[in-house]
Amino acid sequence: MSSPETDDPTGDIHPEEFRRFGHEVVDWIADYLAGVDRLPVMPDLEPGALRTALPDRAPESPESLEAVLADFREQVVPATTHWNHPSFHAYFANTASGPGILGEMLAAALNANAMVWRTSPSATELEEVVTDWVARMLGLPDDFRGVINDTASSSSLYALAAAREMRLPESWASGLAGAPPGRIYTSEEAHSSIRKAATTLGFGRDGVRAIATDDDFRMRPDALRDALEDDRAAGVRPVAVVATIGTTSTTAVDPVADIAPIAEEAGVWLHVDAAYAGPMAALPEFAAHFRGWERAHSIVVNPHKWLFTPMDCSLLYCRRPDQLRAAFSLTPEYLRTPELASGTNLMDYGVSLGRRFRALKLWFVLRRFGVDGMVSRLREHVRLTRVVQGWVEATPGWEVLAPCPFATLIFRHAPADLDEAALDRHNRALMERVNRSGVAFFSHTEVRGRIGLRFSIGNLRTTEAHLRRTWGALESAAAEG
Amino acid sequence: MSSPETDDPTGDIHPEEFRRFGHEVVDWIADYLAGVDRLPVMPDLEPGALRTALPDRAPESPESLEAVLADFREQVVPATTHWNHPSFHAYFANTASGPGILGEMLAAALNANAMVWRTSPSATELEEVVTDWVARMLGLPDDFRGVINDTASSSSLYALAAAREMRLPESWASGLAGAPPGRIYTSEEAHSSIRKAATTLGFGRDGVRAIATDDDFRMRPDALRDALEDDRAAGVRPVAVVATIGTTSTTAVDPVADIAPIAEEAGVWLHVDAAYAGPMAALPEFAAHFRGWERAHSIVVNPHKWLFTPMDCSLLYCRRPDQLRAAFSLTPEYLRTPELASGTNLMDYGVSLGRRFRALKLWFVLRRFGVDGMVSRLREHVRLTRVVQGWVEATPGWEVLAPCPFATLIFRHAPADLDEAALDRHNRALMERVNRSGVAFFSHTEVRGRIGLRFSIGNLRTTEAHLRRTWGALESAAAEG
Ligand SMILES: Cc1ncc(COP(=O)(O)O)c(C=O)c1O
Ligand SMILES: Cc1ncc(COP(=O)(O)O)c(C=O)c1O
Repeated sequence: MSSPETDDPTGDIHPEEFRRFGHEVVDWIADYLAGVDRLPVMPDLEPGALRTALPDRAPESPESLEAVLADFREQVVPATTHWNHPSFHAYFANTASGPGILGEMLAAALNANAMVWRTSPSATELEEVVTDWVARMLGLPDDFRGVINDTASSSSLYALAAAREMRLPESWASGLAGAPPGRIYTSEEAHSSIRKAATTLGFGRDGVRAIATDDDFRMRPDALRDALEDDRAAGVRPVAVVATIGTTSTTAVDPVADIAPIAEEAGVWLHVDAAYAGPMAALPEFAAHFRGWERAHSIVVNPHKWLFTPMDCSLLYCRRPDQLRAAFSLTPEYLRTPELASGTNLMDYGVSLGRRFRALKLWFVLRRFGVDGMVSRLREHVRLTRVVQGWVEATPGWEVLAPCPFATLIFRHAPADLDEAALDRHNRALMERVNRSGVAFFSHTEVRGRIGLRFSIGNLRTTEAHLRRTWGALESAAAEG
Repeated sequence: MSSPETDDPTGDIHPEEFRRFGHEVVDWIADYLAGVDRLPVMPDLEPGALRTALPDRAPESPESLEAVLADFREQVVPATTHWNHPSFHAYFANTASGPGILGEMLAAALNANAMVWRTSPSATELEEVVTDWVARMLGLPDDFRGVINDTASSSSLYALAAAREMRLPESWASGLAGAPPGRIYTSEEAHSSIRKAATTLGFGRDGVRAIATDDDFRMRPDALRDALEDDRAAGVRPVAVVATIGTTSTTAVDPVADIAPIAEEAGVWLHVDAAYAGPMAALPEFAAHFRGWERAHSIVVNPHKWLFTPMDCSLLYCRRPDQLRAAFSLTPEYLRTPELASGTNLMDYGVSLGRRFRALKLWFVLRRFGVDGMVSRLREHVRLTRVVQGWVEATPGWEVLAPCPFATLIFRHAPADLDEAALDRHNRALMERVNRSGVAFFSHTEVRGRIGLRFSIGNLRTTEAHLRRTWGALESAAAEG
C-alpha cells in the first residue's frame, strides 16, 4: 500500500493526486456501466455483514486512496443493490445516466450552496432554467415556477405547508393548537409521504382522510365531494386535496379533471403527486392521463425516478410560490443580501437552507438527450413493459393484477390449485428466490388483498434480452413450487 | 460541434463516451482545484444574467457533450460563487476536498437509494459505520445513533419532531389542534432553522421562545429556567430546549452543562445544534466548549461545513432513535421487506424516503485524512484565524466585535470620525467593494445592533498568503472611504 502523496498535512490532497485517482474512478465507472449487468442485482447478504467487516473507528493516520478504492471495490460494491442495473425492476426503476453522472461530478467540485442568489448565481438561475425546461417539455402553463428538492417526500411536505399557509394563515404565528383541525384528502392508494407530511405538519394521522377508489384504483370524485361536505359540517377545515398521477402501488391515475373543480369549489389547495409518472406528460399519446393537472396549485415530478437523473432530484412546481415563501421565508440579518428583492433566494421555498447544485446534472441530461431523446426513451420503456405484459398474459398460470398505464406491471403467478393465502405465500417466495439469485430484483405490493409482483422498467440499459432472461428466472422460480 | 456518439437513441450514452468525457471532466476538476484561487470568488453580475443568456426551452435534438461542457465552462463557471475558493470567507467557509469529490463520483454512478436495508445494504451500513466513526472522533458516548440528512435544517426539524413525539405523543394521531400549545426554547442567537422547524411542525412562530443571552452571546440558564416556569404556569407545554455550540452570527457557545440539568428537570428534549462547531470536539483543547453535550437527546453536526465533505451532508445523532422512528415510521405494504426487523431502514428516521449514498464521500474523507489529519487541519484553521485576529487588533481603526472561540472572526473598520449609523453603512460598503472585486468573499452580521464582517476560515486551500492578500484588499477598501 503506497503512502499518501500529499506533502501538506494541513491542506487538501494535491490536485495531481486527485487527477490520478479521478481517472481511475472514471475508468471504474465506465467499466461498471458497461458490465453492471453481470453483477447480482441484490447481494445475498444478511444485515450487518458489511458493518461488522469494517473497523469500528476511523483510522488515526491517513490511508492511501489506493487502499480506500480497493475496499470500495472489494467490500462496498459486493454489498450494494444495483439501482443502475438493467434488471432492477423494484419500486420505480431508474437510471443514473452518463450525462447525469458527469453533472454530479462537476457539482461536487464546485460545491455551490444555493441558499441565496449571491451564494451561487449559477446554481440558482440554472435551477430556474431547467425547471422551466421540464415544465415546457411537460406542457405545463407558464405560471408554474419550479424548485428542486431532494425528494418527492420533501416536495409534498413543502406544498402542503403552503396549503396550510393558505387555509390556516393565522397558524404561522400562533401554531395549530388554537386552530380548527385541518385535513388533507387523498386516495387510499396515495403514497405514504402524504401521511408523513401530514403528521410532520401537525395535522396528525387523522388529518388525512383516505378517499375510496374505484375498480381501477383511482380516487372517486363523488367520495371526495362527500368527505369535504361531511368535514365542513363537522367543523374541520379542509386544507388540501392530493391527487396522484401514477400511484406507487399500481400506477393508477386519479381523475384530476374531475377532482380540480371539487377542490376549487371547496377553496382548498390542489397538489398533484406525479413523482413517478410526470415525465409521461411529454408524450402526446398519454395526454389524457394529465387532463386537469394544470389546474393544480402544485405538482411534484421526480427526475430521479424517470428522467435519467442520479439521486436526488425532485421538482416542485407551484402556481403560488408566494404561499411557499409565506410558509418558509425567515431571513435573519446574516442572510440578508443586496439582491434580496431582485434575485431568487431558494432557501425561501422549503426547509433546507443549504442546497446542492442539483440543476447541473439535469441540465446535462436534458441537453445530451434532447426532448426527442427523452421521449423516445420513455416510449421504449412503455413498449418493453407491453412485451412483458404479453408474456404474462400468454402464459398459463400467470395473471396481471391491475391496469398498467405506464411502465410498471403488477402481476402474479396463480396456479389453479392454490387458495388466496397460499398464492400470497407462493408469490412472496418466488420473488425472494429470484431476488436472492441476483438475476433480477423485484418488489411487491398488495392489490385488493392480493400480493403481486411489481415489475417496473425505467433503466436505460434494459433490453429485451435482459427481460427474457428475467422472465425465464421467474418461470423457473415459479416451477420450483 | 461533433455529433453525439451513441448509436442507440433508446439507451444511455455508450460507456466509452462516458469514459472520454469523464476523463475530460476529471482534468477540468484537477485544474480547477489547482487554479481556483485565480478566479473571482463571487462573480460581478446582476440577477438574471445567466438565465437570460440561456435558451428558454430544452433542445429538441440531442446535443454533444462537447457543447454542454463548453457552455459549462463559458457560461456556468463565470456565474458561480466559488465555495471551494481559498478566499471564500462568507457564512461558514468549507471545502469539497478531493477525497470527498471522488466519493461523490462513485455515489452518483451507483445511484443507491437507501430507503430500506435491501435497497442498499452498503449505503445503509456505511452510514452506520461513518456516523459511529465521527461519534468516536468527537468523543460522544456509544448510545448516540447517527443518520445522515441533507442539511442541519432537516436534522433539527427531525429532532424536534421526535421531541414533539415525546412530549405530545397524542398529537401523532390527532394532530396539534386539540393539544396544549407546545413551545421550543432557544437563544436569541439560534439559527433561523430552529424557527423554521417550529413553524413547519405546527408550533408557529410563537412556539419558539427566544432566551436572552449574556455579554458573550451565550444563552442565560437563569433566563431559560424562568421561561420554562412561566410557561408551565400558563398552560404551555415545553417541548424542547435547543442549545447551540457555535452560533451562526458569532459562533458563541451556549453553556450546555448548565442547560442540560434544567432541561432534564423540565422533562423536555435537549437538542444541541453544533452544525458548524461540532468537529472541534475532536480537539482536546476545545473540550470545555462541549461540556454537557453528551446529555443531549440529539445533536447535529455538519460535515459539509467543517469536515471537508462536499454538500450535502448533515449528521443527526440521537440517543432516542425510537422517538425518531415513532415520529416518522410509516410502512405501507409496498415498502415492507423481510429485513424490516433485523436491518436498519433509514426511511424511518426522517421525512425523505429516497436517500443518496452520502456516507461514501464521508468515508473517503475520513480514511484519506485520518483522525490526526482532520485534527491538524482544523487546528490550522484556528491558527490562521488567530493570525487575522492579530492583524485586526494591531491595526488602528479596526476592531473585533465578538469573542472568537473557533475560526470565524467578527470585526469591523471603525474610524473614529463616524457615528454608529455611518459605521454600519461604511462596513456594508467596504464589504461590497471587496466582494465585487472578486478578491475575497465575506458575509456580515449584526452584533448588538452593529454591522460586522464575518471572516470564516474553513477551506483547506487557504494559506497565510491568501489571507495577506485579502487583508490588503480590506485595508484599501476601507481607505477608499
Ligand atoms: C448553527 C447553525 N445551525 C444550522 C445551520 C443550517 O445549516 P444547513 O444549511 O445545513 O441547514 C447553520 C447554517 O449556517 C448554522 O450555522
Ligand atoms: C407516487 C409517489 N410519490 C412520492 C414518492 C416518494 O418519493 P421520494 O423517494 O422522492 O420521496 C414515491 C416513491 O416511490 C411515489 O411513488
